[in-house]
Amino acid sequence: MTRERLYLFDTTLRDGAQTNGVDFTLQDKRQIAHMLDDLGIDYVEGGYPGANPMDTEFFGSDPGLGHAAFTAFGMTRRPGRSASNDPGLATLLDASAKAICFVAKASDYQVRVALETTNEENLASIRDSVAAAKARGREVLVDCEHFFDGFKSNPDYAVACAKAAYETGARWVVLCDTNGGTMPHEVETIVGEVARHVPGDHLGIHAHNDTEQAVANSLAAVRAGVRQIQGTLNGLGERCGNANLCSLIPTLKLKKEFADAFDINVSNDKLASLVHVSRALDNILNRPSDRHAPYVGESAFVTKAGIHASAILKEPETYEHVAPELVGNHRKVLVSDQAGRSNVLAELERAGIAFDRNDPKLGRLVDEMKEREAAGYSYESANASFDLLARRTLGRVPDYFRVEQFDVNVEQRYNANGQRVTVALAVVKVNVAGEMLISAAEGNGPVNALDVALRKDLGKYQKYIEGLKLVDYRVRILNGGTEAVTRVLIESEDEKGERWITVGVSPNIIDASFQALMDSVVYKLVKSEAPA
Amino acid sequence: MTRERLYLFDTTLRDGAQTNGVDFTLQDKRQIAHMLDDLGIDYVEGGYPGANPMDTEFFGSDPGLGHAAFTAFGMTRRPGRSASNDPGLATLLDASAKAICFVAKASDYQVRVALETTNEENLASIRDSVAAAKARGREVLVDCEHFFDGFKSNPDYAVACAKAAYETGARWVVLCDTNGGTMPHEVETIVGEVARHVPGDHLGIHAHNDTEQAVANSLAAVRAGVRQIQGTLNGLGERCGNANLCSLIPTLKLKKEFADAFDINVSNDKLASLVHVSRALDNILNRPSDRHAPYVGESAFVTKAGIHASAILKEPETYEHVAPELVGNHRKVLVSDQAGRSNVLAELERAGIAFDRNDPKLGRLVDEMKEREAAGYSYESANASFDLLARRTLGRVPDYFRVEQFDVNVEQRYNANGQRVTVALAVVKVNVAGEMLISAAEGNGPVNALDVALRKDLGKYQKYIEGLKLVDYRVRILNGGTEAVTRVLIESEDEKGERWITVGVSPNIIDASFQALMDSVVYKLVKSEAPA
Repeated sequence: MTRERLYLFDTTLRDGAQTNGVDFTLQDKRQIAHMLDDLGIDYVEGGYPGANPMDTEFFGSDPGLGHAAFTAFGMTRRPGRSASNDPGLATLLDASAKAICFVAKASDYQVRVALETTNEENLASIRDSVAAAKARGREVLVDCEHFFDGFKSNPDYAVACAKAAYETGARWVVLCDTNGGTMPHEVETIVGEVARHVPGDHLGIHAHNDTEQAVANSLAAVRAGVRQIQGTLNGLGERCGNANLCSLIPTLKLKKEFADAFDINVSNDKLASLVHVSRALDNILNRPSDRHAPYVGESAFVTKAGIHASAILKEPETYEHVAPELVGNHRKVLVSDQAGRSNVLAELERAGIAFDRNDPKLGRLVDEMKEREAAGYSYESANASFDLLARRTLGRVPDYFRVEQFDVNVEQRYNANGQRVTVALAVVKVNVAGEMLISAAEGNGPVNALDVALRKDLGKYQKYIEGLKLVDYRVRILNGGTEAVTRVLIESEDEKGERWITVGVSPNIIDASFQALMDSVVYKLVKSEAPA
Repeated sequence: MTRERLYLFDTTLRDGAQTNGVDFTLQDKRQIAHMLDDLGIDYVEGGYPGANPMDTEFFGSDPGLGHAAFTAFGMTRRPGRSASNDPGLATLLDASAKAICFVAKASDYQVRVALETTNEENLASIRDSVAAAKARGREVLVDCEHFFDGFKSNPDYAVACAKAAYETGARWVVLCDTNGGTMPHEVETIVGEVARHVPGDHLGIHAHNDTEQAVANSLAAVRAGVRQIQGTLNGLGERCGNANLCSLIPTLKLKKEFADAFDINVSNDKLASLVHVSRALDNILNRPSDRHAPYVGESAFVTKAGIHASAILKEPETYEHVAPELVGNHRKVLVSDQAGRSNVLAELERAGIAFDRNDPKLGRLVDEMKEREAAGYSYESANASFDLLARRTLGRVPDYFRVEQFDVNVEQRYNANGQRVTVALAVVKVNVAGEMLISAAEGNGPVNALDVALRKDLGKYQKYIEGLKLVDYRVRILNGGTEAVTRVLIESEDEKGERWITVGVSPNIIDASFQALMDSVVYKLVKSEAPA
């Protein structure tokens, strides 16, 4: 079989930005564009210049991508205007982008109801816009909006739109399942029809996940002939999201039928960075990662106790459809002392903590972790707290200082003007090598006040923690009801931009927060090799 | 076309219980089983009697389901034992269940590596176990584990396993994609082959989501002939989860090809409760619902501003693949005053609050909601806080009482025995119609102390809040960094079992919690029609 090239088009920064709750900053967009370029994506759609000031600024200069074609998105010329007299189109043509992706209606119903124009004028708009962009030296793509619904009601017109784009010189005609309601077998049949008019190596697929089949629809389209897939990282996107590139890329690289037939511009090395890329996007968005995401989720290769236990111990691959390392993930079996132990050893290796396999303390560490995880500590997330627990159990963390006492107070009352005022105040008493240091601070809330007071004066250790700052604070209530305990995760960053996460668990949220704060400070001291 | 019956088998309580982080209580299991039965599911798999004390207890008596067959899961007799001399099988046969679902290997590799027995002995185990369960009057299902991988390496043996089950009298032979790595077109081809040996109306599909195609795989299997689908609510399940019944059910009911060909036992009325069912499971698990879940997610029918705005205002259906009401969801367009207004009116109708469409106060309510939602309040979740905001703006909530002041203190120190002790104490001063009431209380943490103190003495209103209790407390940090604000959601319950959710937002977690507590108390007074 001849291998064919399959192209990946990312629209995280355009369609993904339509997600309810997602608001990228310009800095976010630049960072994500470079990450996508580095991953090996062929087209990075940056946004819609002219639609808002940020996108206009983003397209004001070349972002300096390597392989990826930086792509601007926008509408074809408006009905009734000429291509040379449409301010929207002009902005698009002026954008600093290698490629332009036009969106055009491919459904006669949409042309009538949404555009309020004629079928012929819509076709002319496609032709004129493609020609204008070609004349400016751009590579041109046309997203045929509502293509599948349009095809179902009027196949001739949908195909006419696709042909108008292709015949005027569009490099890619992208078939969009805009409302996300099309089934994979329908995609396969319809793409097959279209490919009789526009060659498959000029066709793309743009699928939405409204029936949970965006990935399947994308692959069905590839099987039927398209050679470009549009999608987003982590399936970000309006409503239920777009086709998830983090699921598609591994399938294209690792599943025999696709791997044998197609080349994509994502190398095996880059594939192994996919977990990192996926989590990096969630970090930028400051939202929790989906633990159960295919391939890249924290639990994607986790097996819990049960009937699979013995088989997994014999042969882990018997329960894995691909090897987790290929996408930068790892196996975890939550199944027995034996497995618990091997997990812990693997974690120690990842953390770079030296150990002796025969050290009896390792058994104590395994037991301690199990007990604490049962109580709610999540060492899987809190890498720095794991590191400290391991070092402490193996006997290697100095007692830098001891917090003798703290006191946090939150008061709310009305001031003389009748306004509600809330004040949070904390006092911390720390013993540093016999010296008692008492610090007090106000804060936005009790945890902030406590944090500021704790880090105000640690005596001889103060210089090691100057660059430390908290970048995230997350709270979860475990159990619920009267047995509720609070789990706090704190993410910290130092002056070099290194980040780590610590955990605290307690029925009292202040106590839980304080544990996580303490771990963060102590971890920084260990990392800085502060003398005992 | 003759309509055929398609059966739904739910394994939320068995395979779903394998999810990392999921631990059902017996009470949870009972509640979920009844919810599934009520929805119209045909088989409710309750667990694995004998595998753990809870499942054994669950199967100790008939849970009293209506339509659904309560199903016990377990292994076929162990290699080398007879069916009458296998304690595991005996427990299964003794379970109080209408149906038994056996799991059996259908891959020669798995038989050799995991079971360490011969192909023939595995077939004999299937036959003996099915026969034993039939003899006890049970309806029998056989989950053929690793069926697709097994078929790919040795089709004859995989089919032999399926035939052994069918020919001994199993009502259903279920083809499992245990590792979740099979592609939809492979499922379709392989099911087609198997259906030449076992009739499709005796075949089921059990898919996992490791390539994000569990739904597509299930539908592909139906197209190829199977007539039973196994899945879970919200796609719960080990690793990346099982096939998501909350996506499958609407597709089977609403997408023409499936709706025309098949009957499922979920009525249109029950379909309209699907959002409720999905959220109820998340509530039981105390985890956030996936906003972007197909059909049932909070954002599944939400459109953000942008190029679709004008079309949606003209014709909402142009951007919806199905009508949201059919699954109990609703449309939301985050696009303009116009849309904001109609959303609010819809919410008022849902809350049963009378209003006059021409009341100028409605405009103020829309503006107020927008401002507060931008600040982090989530009225979508906090129904009771929305109710209060609306009643207050429309001028109908009495000032029952006013909290003049509160003071919360958390102190941590070492006691005489060197143990760390944490104490949380709150004082609340309330003005009830001129009478100053001061109450103090200790708690597990600051919020608990504050809650107890606030509800200790509300004077003449005390009798209305006696039955009130907090059943859930959730915290999220919005934004992050120095601009972080805390959103607190509190779920309360009264003596009649009615529940409501309130919200508070503030940079100070105590302030945010207090807002939510106050709303909960006031909502209870409104609901109880306490006199002003």
